[in-house]
Amino acid sequence: MAKLYFRHGAMDSAKTMNLLAVAHNYRKQGKRVVLLKPQLDDRFGRGRIASRSGLEADADMLVSADTVFELDRFRDVDCVLVDEAQFLAPAIIDQLRMMSLLLDMPVICYGLRTDFRTESFPGARRLMELADSIEEVKVTCQFCGRKAVFNLRMVDGRAVVEGEQIVLGDAQYAPVCGRHYIDRVGIAGLRRLGMTMPAGIEEG
Amino acid sequence: MAKLYFRHGAMDSAKTMNLLAVAHNYRKQGKRVVLLKPQLDDRFGRGRIASRSGLEADADMLVSADTVFELDRFRDVDCVLVDEAQFLAPAIIDQLRMMSLLLDMPVICYGLRTDFRTESFPGARRLMELADSIEEVKVTCQFCGRKAVFNLRMVDGRAVVEGEQIVLGDAQYAPVCGRHYIDRVGIAGLRRLGMTMPAGIEEG
Amino acid sequence: MAKLYFRHGAMDSAKTMNLLAVAHNYRKQGKRVVLLKPQLDDRFGRGRIASRSGLEADADMLVSADTVFELDRFRDVDCVLVDEAQFLAPAIIDQLRMMSLLLDMPVICYGLRTDFRTESFPGARRLMELADSIEEVKVTCQFCGRKAVFNLRMVDGRAVVEGEQIVLGDAQYAPVCGRHYIDRVGIAGLRRLGMTMPAGIEEG
Amino acid sequence: MAKLYFRHGAMDSAKTMNLLAVAHNYRKQGKRVVLLKPQLDDRFGRGRIASRSGLEADADMLVSADTVFELDRFRDVDCVLVDEAQFLAPAIIDQLRMMSLLLDMPVICYGLRTDFRTESFPGARRLMELADSIEEVKVTCQFCGRKAVFNLRMVDGRAVVEGEQIVLGDAQYAPVCGRHYIDRVGIAGLRRLGMTMPAGIEEG
Repeated sequence: MAKLYFRHGAMDSAKTMNLLAVAHNYRKQGKRVVLLKPQLDDRFGRGRIASRSGLEADADMLVSADTVFELDRFRDVDCVLVDEAQFLAPAIIDQLRMMSLLLDMPVICYGLRTDFRTESFPGARRLMELADSIEEVKVTCQFCGRKAVFNLRMVDGRAVVEGEQIVLGDAQYAPVCGRHYIDRVGIAGLRRLGMTMPAGIEEG
Repeated sequence: MAKLYFRHGAMDSAKTMNLLAVAHNYRKQGKRVVLLKPQLDDRFGRGRIASRSGLEADADMLVSADTVFELDRFRDVDCVLVDEAQFLAPAIIDQLRMMSLLLDMPVICYGLRTDFRTESFPGARRLMELADSIEEVKVTCQFCGRKAVFNLRMVDGRAVVEGEQIVLGDAQYAPVCGRHYIDRVGIAGLRRLGMTMPAGIEEG
Repeated sequence: MAKLYFRHGAMDSAKTMNLLAVAHNYRKQGKRVVLLKPQLDDRFGRGRIASRSGLEADADMLVSADTVFELDRFRDVDCVLVDEAQFLAPAIIDQLRMMSLLLDMPVICYGLRTDFRTESFPGARRLMELADSIEEVKVTCQFCGRKAVFNLRMVDGRAVVEGEQIVLGDAQYAPVCGRHYIDRVGIAGLRRLGMTMPAGIEEG
Repeated sequence: MAKLYFRHGAMDSAKTMNLLAVAHNYRKQGKRVVLLKPQLDDRFGRGRIASRSGLEADADMLVSADTVFELDRFRDVDCVLVDEAQFLAPAIIDQLRMMSLLLDMPVICYGLRTDFRTESFPGARRLMELADSIEEVKVTCQFCGRKAVFNLRMVDGRAVVEGEQIVLGDAQYAPVCGRHYIDRVGIAGLRRLGMTMPAGIEEG
């Protein structure tokens, strides 16, 4: 039984490179893969899926919030691969879930779990509800050797806690462990984010 | 660096038994564990954490939506274990996250991912955002040998799609794979749940 | 497609309790499980599979190095569960591997990876070669909060590096992390075990 | 506490590409990585670590069976990455294990688990004993959509069961699931390999 996968990872964890490696492996075996990405994400040009390491491939389809997939068009597909899946609408994840089950076809979604405020993106939230398998693509914290779990938004070298959820191209992000997230955002910043604190924390 | 864990599993996956095994192991090594559960869950009596297999233990603390943990009271604790963590308020998960980081103390939360409508419980949703490690406690589908991912609510032997998110004691639940979830709820039922479908699905 | 699993864990990681939880879950769903254990292991009485937490069950079959399984006797079995699988002969693991594939039946083996000298047990070594899924049952180090990976053999409270691979009932064991394994065995002890060292290690 | 990792995968699972992605991420963060490979493996030229997808990098060091690492030379290293780790001598794995523990430095080894006869390579066997974390790099079976677990050696399009463990450059390999391993090697071939069978298997 083919699965719906959510392979999440912090910023710069080489998720796209992993996706391209999987696509490469399927194609080398003579199998047919379909590459999807959200319409929103056009950092590397519309219709390109590009890893920071230099590898890239064409997306077969750009997906928007009101896309309706035709089941019949996927009947001979061996695997669907989705880049930047965190930006997909929940209704798209619903459809991918149904397609995986009805066509016995693996659907592998790569994406971020949460934004710079530790809130999940809509596509990631729905994937966390519906995926058969939740796997992690790891990267170390920008500031130490621990695994990164959170994403800092940096402006002029400083962590910020305000702004829109998605600011493509403009802001810079750093993958960080929990300890460095606290360190850079600060206790006051965490409170501004709405994070509830236990009693007895020293500010600073 | 101690982690915040979310160990999720469908109904009847022996999550509580796993929790009690971990508690047993810590105590056998002379370490101090604190067992928490939400105030809501009193199926087995207030303050008891009981596995269906017969093992049980006392909860050290019942947690409600407005509980504020005192950091100092956890300074000599080796591990916090949480049963039925899906019922916790997001504000409680926030605090557990901070306690884990500030005290370098592992916090291991066991719970369901989603309700009978495939929607995440509030505590589970926040854990999926904040946990360092997301792990699965597996159980097979009630109706086949595949892994269960969803939970059916059964009334008089039939799957239902309506009702409150939490109905303690009254309804019955079955862990099911995606295929049997579709099979029992039906395409019409999925639509009533608000699940968006791809085009070209045959009803029935 | 059903899998062959190797769920390994250090001493006292509640492997047997996990096995009994899985057996309980299968039986609760009206499915048929077969429990196996090596003939060698009779700590808790011949034919009993007993967890230190108090739970126990009857083994359906004791397996020796020359056991030959009858494929037909497993045709209506939903799952085979194996306790103390590290003690099984490689020829038994071969057969379990074939049975899993030919009958599309999951076989879940629980056991230690390595002995007190960091050498793999024969059944564990073959499982590491043939298993579809290698999973870990975790326990913390006896002496700190890190995950245990090695097993110390203790005599009169001191770690020893000599003796037979299997000493049932007599010796005592402690699960330890790598750092405490080095600490207790000592650099000289590691050399006596045949462990090759990099240059520049200070003794002591 | 930094870990020793064994990331195993069947042939063509993009292990080297994963290694290069990890190296890229460390370097992007300004951290220092050391890339090792066994002296034996010179398919892509001595001293190159090359992925079939086109990415490549220089190995910092070629390791032979009698290499002795100088602990002091690794004191400012953030991560050691090893390609084709299955070919390393057990004595090398011992040293990597000690270095990881004594320097608190992650060592990430990529390699095959087993050869075309389902027997572990020497480096893989020792890694399975000593690694803190055993992870899988997945690839699908050449002949179906299931996960590959075994490696077929192919000569003129047919699976063979005889020959040396390592034949670089000459033979061809295919990653396969257990079912297709049996199918291509055949029951008679499995017996020639020394695989012990349960009773009641039909030949052919």
